[in-house]
Amino acid sequence: MTQPRSTGTTTGPAAGASGPSSAPADEVTIAVDAMGGDSGPRPVVEGLKQFLAKDPGARVLLFGDEAQLRPLLDKQGIDRLEVIHASDVVSMTDKPSQVMRHGKDTSMWGAVDAVRDGRAGACVSCGNTGALMAVSMLRLRKAEGVDRPAIGCLWPSTNPGGFNLMLDVGADVRADQHDLLTYAVMGAAYAAEGLNLERPRVGLLNVGTEEHKGRAELKVAHELIGRSAEAGGFDYIGFVEGGDIPSDRVDVVVTDGFTGNVALKTGEGTSRLISSLLQEAFRKTWLSRIAAGMAMASLKRLRKRIDPRRVNGGVFLGLGGTVVKSHGSADATGVAAALKLSARLARSDFTHRLASRVAAAPQRETEQGDEASQNIRSMS
Amino acid sequence: MTQPRSTGTTTGPAAGASGPSSAPADEVTIAVDAMGGDSGPRPVVEGLKQFLAKDPGARVLLFGDEAQLRPLLDKQGIDRLEVIHASDVVSMTDKPSQVMRHGKDTSMWGAVDAVRDGRAGACVSCGNTGALMAVSMLRLRKAEGVDRPAIGCLWPSTNPGGFNLMLDVGADVRADQHDLLTYAVMGAAYAAEGLNLERPRVGLLNVGTEEHKGRAELKVAHELIGRSAEAGGFDYIGFVEGGDIPSDRVDVVVTDGFTGNVALKTGEGTSRLISSLLQEAFRKTWLSRIAAGMAMASLKRLRKRIDPRRVNGGVFLGLGGTVVKSHGSADATGVAAALKLSARLARSDFTHRLASRVAAAPQRETEQGDEASQNIRSMS
Repeated sequence: MTQPRSTGTTTGPAAGASGPSSAPADEVTIAVDAMGGDSGPRPVVEGLKQFLAKDPGARVLLFGDEAQLRPLLDKQGIDRLEVIHASDVVSMTDKPSQVMRHGKDTSMWGAVDAVRDGRAGACVSCGNTGALMAVSMLRLRKAEGVDRPAIGCLWPSTNPGGFNLMLDVGADVRADQHDLLTYAVMGAAYAAEGLNLERPRVGLLNVGTEEHKGRAELKVAHELIGRSAEAGGFDYIGFVEGGDIPSDRVDVVVTDGFTGNVALKTGEGTSRLISSLLQEAFRKTWLSRIAAGMAMASLKRLRKRIDPRRVNGGVFLGLGGTVVKSHGSADATGVAAALKLSARLARSDFTHRLASRVAAAPQRETEQGDEASQNIRSMS
Repeated sequence: MTQPRSTGTTTGPAAGASGPSSAPADEVTIAVDAMGGDSGPRPVVEGLKQFLAKDPGARVLLFGDEAQLRPLLDKQGIDRLEVIHASDVVSMTDKPSQVMRHGKDTSMWGAVDAVRDGRAGACVSCGNTGALMAVSMLRLRKAEGVDRPAIGCLWPSTNPGGFNLMLDVGADVRADQHDLLTYAVMGAAYAAEGLNLERPRVGLLNVGTEEHKGRAELKVAHELIGRSAEAGGFDYIGFVEGGDIPSDRVDVVVTDGFTGNVALKTGEGTSRLISSLLQEAFRKTWLSRIAAGMAMASLKRLRKRIDPRRVNGGVFLGLGGTVVKSHGSADATGVAAALKLSARLARSDFTHRLASRVAAAPQRETEQGDEASQNIRSMS
């Protein structure tokens, strides 16, 4: 499945349209919301130091409270960084609707607006997910043909590339059959650009793989996605189950934001449980302690392979600009991973590539869609 | 939380009502559906051999095709077992509605009917979950006050007892606010009887712990469950997230059968992924291979701790009899675990204890419930 095509090092013909237009091909500017994470701006600043050190073509516009940021930045000098003061912060408990009305002076709003104005090619925030999506929809607008944007998240798997993509993992708790179809098209586009898959395999998450199982809207989405696969440039493999999410059966798992969010957090929680039990097991006897020392290198590789910080960064799909949501509790390594992802997406001009794929996909089969909507009513 | 009360060794005052009425206190009869599992009757027969060897008070009524069962049984003599021939089998692809109409001669139907007739104290099947629930509802009826029965499943956790309970994990893809309240009461009852918890902590699964998050019916269920906690003998801790399912924050996780099924299978899949990566890591170098040998005992303990076969057995909650669904792919160890669980529940007269808890709980606050239903319409 994996194709050795590199989307990360060259920019497409439309590149620069959402970044600084006179920049050389490998230069990129990322807008970063420094505030609103669980541990304040410190891990954000440390993460961007790591990121900038590894990516000499990158620049950062850092939005936040200058009085808090300056002391963190001055410890070590950081080049290629501009602090833009924002007097207000979105907290984790702020309601999205409040932020949309009163959030103009927040660091989150500023960072999103930098993408809107073309000063940055992508935006990264560790803040309140609901508020970030609301501000992004308000300022960047939805892409043509997208009714509900989604958050796509990579997931460790047994696939050759090491990851699968799942969406939606929490943009909206609802999704009807048309949204699920749009998610399939957007997910296939992200897998093509972000995972270098020529023809991603898309599956629809359900409680069984038989056609008669599950909710009514899933049966309709099943038909719609199947009909759109050829034109959308993906293979539709039908229903998949929770156990397939970390498997090599599928590349893109499509589901509503409620189910996707629960699945994502359940997987993370299970992974944490096993890690802690494993550490306990290795501390149990003197023999196992010695063994742990001997196996250290192998265990570290494993840890790195399933480390959720490495895949930190939910990508907002279906907007007029690229926004990456980092975990609220991300540490410096996690923030650096989200920044790296955002730089890659900005350089490949992901926003425009996704929009053109959504526009080209035959998901607006309005009449068939309406027929399907009627089917769902008669079934449920 | 854990109380050293033993519900498994003595029977309550109402014991025997659903088992053989003249049997001594530790005798129990389990009806077993031998057919319909992924690998046919062999693992079932091997599992019941293991079970009967460890439980001298248990008897088994084995339903299935006598011509297939006799050769498997005759290899070694098994006491305390009666084969009851059934000419038909429910396959994994049969629709529940078909089985309800035409399934009278199946081994599944026979095993459920043995509970209905009082010949067995509980029933175990590895077959088609949907069909088993449909036949169980038809033959055993729903308990008073239960609209949608649920499947409850234990889950490895960091709790002192080692497990949490989640329900529903797949009886019904839908659940409204009243169903979720009933699940909370039934889950608390199962945790009290099956996990020996005096006052289980119940949480409602959502995409965030803030009160304004999630679907409309969850906000109403949140209020209803909160109001019923005191009378229901449990502590309601509010919304929990996917990451809390394997944690020590909660004992009983309440959700609809779609979300619960996806979460269960995602957790199992994540666990399988990490196990396979761990094996790979230990095979990587000669040093890690030696280390694996040295840590063998500790790793085996860990493996046993999170082995899904040990917690095999989804319990059907809210019916007029005890039915345990074993994994379709369960091996002998898994089948033995499901049989052990069913014997424990039969001996503690679980069906009647659960029914009296559901009847005693104040979930039928009809007027407040209807008010809540109206709220949900105005919210959504």
